[in-house]
Amino acid sequence: MRQSQLFTKTTKDVAKEEVSKNAQFLLRAGYIHKEMAGAYDLLPLGLMVVEKIKEIVRQEMNKIGGVELIMTALQRKELWEKTDRWDDNMVDVWFKSELVSGNEVGFGWSHEEPMCDMIKNHISSYRDLPVYVYQFQTKMRNEKRAKSGLMRGREFVMKDMYSFNLGKEDHTEFYNGAIEAYKKVFDRVGLGDDTYVTFASGGAFTEFSHEFQTVVETGEDTIYLNQDKSIAINEEVLNDKTLQELGIARNDLQEVKTAEVGNIFNFGTAKSEQLGLYYTDEAGTKTPVWLGSYGIGITRLMGVLVEKFADDRGIVWTNREVAPFDLHLVSLLRENIKAADELYEKLGVAGYDVLYDDRPDARAGQKFADSDLIGIPFRIVVSEKTLDQDSVEFVNRKTKETELVSIKKLEAYLTTHV
Amino acid sequence: MRQSQLFTKTTKDVAKEEVSKNAQFLLRAGYIHKEMAGAYDLLPLGLMVVEKIKEIVRQEMNKIGGVELIMTALQRKELWEKTDRWDDNMVDVWFKSELVSGNEVGFGWSHEEPMCDMIKNHISSYRDLPVYVYQFQTKMRNEKRAKSGLMRGREFVMKDMYSFNLGKEDHTEFYNGAIEAYKKVFDRVGLGDDTYVTFASGGAFTEFSHEFQTVVETGEDTIYLNQDKSIAINEEVLNDKTLQELGIARNDLQEVKTAEVGNIFNFGTAKSEQLGLYYTDEAGTKTPVWLGSYGIGITRLMGVLVEKFADDRGIVWTNREVAPFDLHLVSLLRENIKAADELYEKLGVAGYDVLYDDRPDARAGQKFADSDLIGIPFRIVVSEKTLDQDSVEFVNRKTKETELVSIKKLEAYLTTHV
Repeated sequence: MRQSQLFTKTTKDVAKEEVSKNAQFLLRAGYIHKEMAGAYDLLPLGLMVVEKIKEIVRQEMNKIGGVELIMTALQRKELWEKTDRWDDNMVDVWFKSELVSGNEVGFGWSHEEPMCDMIKNHISSYRDLPVYVYQFQTKMRNEKRAKSGLMRGREFVMKDMYSFNLGKEDHTEFYNGAIEAYKKVFDRVGLGDDTYVTFASGGAFTEFSHEFQTVVETGEDTIYLNQDKSIAINEEVLNDKTLQELGIARNDLQEVKTAEVGNIFNFGTAKSEQLGLYYTDEAGTKTPVWLGSYGIGITRLMGVLVEKFADDRGIVWTNREVAPFDLHLVSLLRENIKAADELYEKLGVAGYDVLYDDRPDARAGQKFADSDLIGIPFRIVVSEKTLDQDSVEFVNRKTKETELVSIKKLEAYLTTHV
Repeated sequence: MRQSQLFTKTTKDVAKEEVSKNAQFLLRAGYIHKEMAGAYDLLPLGLMVVEKIKEIVRQEMNKIGGVELIMTALQRKELWEKTDRWDDNMVDVWFKSELVSGNEVGFGWSHEEPMCDMIKNHISSYRDLPVYVYQFQTKMRNEKRAKSGLMRGREFVMKDMYSFNLGKEDHTEFYNGAIEAYKKVFDRVGLGDDTYVTFASGGAFTEFSHEFQTVVETGEDTIYLNQDKSIAINEEVLNDKTLQELGIARNDLQEVKTAEVGNIFNFGTAKSEQLGLYYTDEAGTKTPVWLGSYGIGITRLMGVLVEKFADDRGIVWTNREVAPFDLHLVSLLRENIKAADELYEKLGVAGYDVLYDDRPDARAGQKFADSDLIGIPFRIVVSEKTLDQDSVEFVNRKTKETELVSIKKLEAYLTTHV
């Protein structure tokens, strides 16, 4: 894409109330626009990153048998009353409104209830199970604290998957498979080394749930980590009983600040019983379905990546799987612009998705500052000076290393460096 | 995709209040699930069709310079008050709720206001224009009448594009280009021959707006059509003044029922002036931006396709660009199942997206009925009988024509028939 076609402009000014690093840089670089606290428009660059993260997640969910669909935001009061989750005293993040006809409706903050209710139409026999479904849904949560940019939103994109299994054994097998799939997702976005499967509260249904917590200084959560044993415990379940069960001494745990990037939850058969989700087993017995739910905050993940890896110059995307573009081609040419145009075309043909800074009016300093702020992992600079040597300058955004690469050898160079 | 992996089941029963053909068939075939009147979950098959229609629209919008982004559903009261569109007496389809902090918020039913407000951050000089942006957004409208399935929703997917131009001339050129792009969209989904650019009310801003109206018996709208001159007029502007301007006699117009599948609207500079969207022209003068908006109801389009082309057996998708799959491979084999598996694999390698009815328990009659109901344009039947002749049966869903095609020649046959 030619940068001259990208209408968003970078800016140095951000509203004072934006205290989080991720919101500051994403706003300044033109990835997002703020509608209100916790609700950001995804501008072209922002939408690209979100779609890339979604595609990684989609691939990994499909690999474990997930089928994609999408539920409505509008929610029925009667359904959520069945599980006692309509009342604002039980769930304090509902947005509610009224239909013209007078009935109250809610806006989906989670989707276990409608998902179970929908699936009742398609499950009757043991032969109909298992079913694994997932969606990328815009969730609405009436959050009190929405000061952390994309890390905690009133409106945000979430991947939520739901597993419907015959019994505990099948359920556990899938649940463990989902943990592995989640690890792959966090590896691919570049957070693998600093993301820990963490024991957390299981609520009324199960002893523990599992969170995926990424170490980041500005995180809202605190976990207790034993790196040797690769065990992490959320502070909410850090007690003698848990320590004993996991065979860990309190002294061997290190307190770290984290952001929750995913969570998986075992409902057992409790919610199915509340909602009437049963199947007939081989012996003809009516049996409740085992339910699990599996979330990944897509827009939050984007926020965490910025929060964790940005430097003082701006955003640093970890790799081309999440960056809005593979390469940032920055032309400083004032004459012979055709040389840059040809390079842009050539890189496209070679399969690279390129942002091409072709702006004729912008100065070199502005172009480099914008490029640093936008944070595409690799930059190719073409100038009169580099062309004199039939070369371009290749810059690594993260390490700031630069190398002069001959244009003839550029393609071969990129295959090993990008 | 193997049908045994598709958790949705077809059904003969649909709730009595579903009076529209599109909702009946889409529910029965498992494309959608009803949450409440006017709000339907998109199950896997439904999501596939929606994504396919989106991709057609995306391609055509990109061709005319559109850049994709996505705005929030949550809307600020203060912004919409500036154009006098917050008040329920002015706009009667708002869903509104309250933030925990006490401020009222709305849920987006349209996005001109936030789009103009956002773009103010990125436009200052004439050099920054034109800008064309679009989104696929889930709109919320508190509709009184939501009885037509996907044709009129309380929650529905819409493509809305906005044009920002320097002046009337540029604006008109883009506006006319958008009409051509819309024609291409409706051609590609298979509605081109029965969709008419229709003169409609321009509201306070302009004499006429343009609607795209598709002839369909069950449509909610009425237009007056002169097929010879290819002119159509919405009943709301059918008066002597309009007839005179368009040079048409009332007698030459035929009354037809239609569904509105798109509309384009010229705001001139009125909304920019209300919202303070100005640029500095070459002479240094502060000048309001020309605004146009361009909508296509994506989920409605899906409903119209079903409403218009379904027969008594079920849905008939017009072509592979909108159908959930290119081909429906129906295996009646009880033994030698491998032959069908191989065919499935071979068709995939050849580049076809295939739904493979591999269900071991279902009878032939059930499989054919399901296949007719789901409505993939072409069916390939493989049975012991066809294999005896080294052949498969090729069935056209629309015309019901069948032909025995030798497996050896199948690929060549498909390239000319699908």
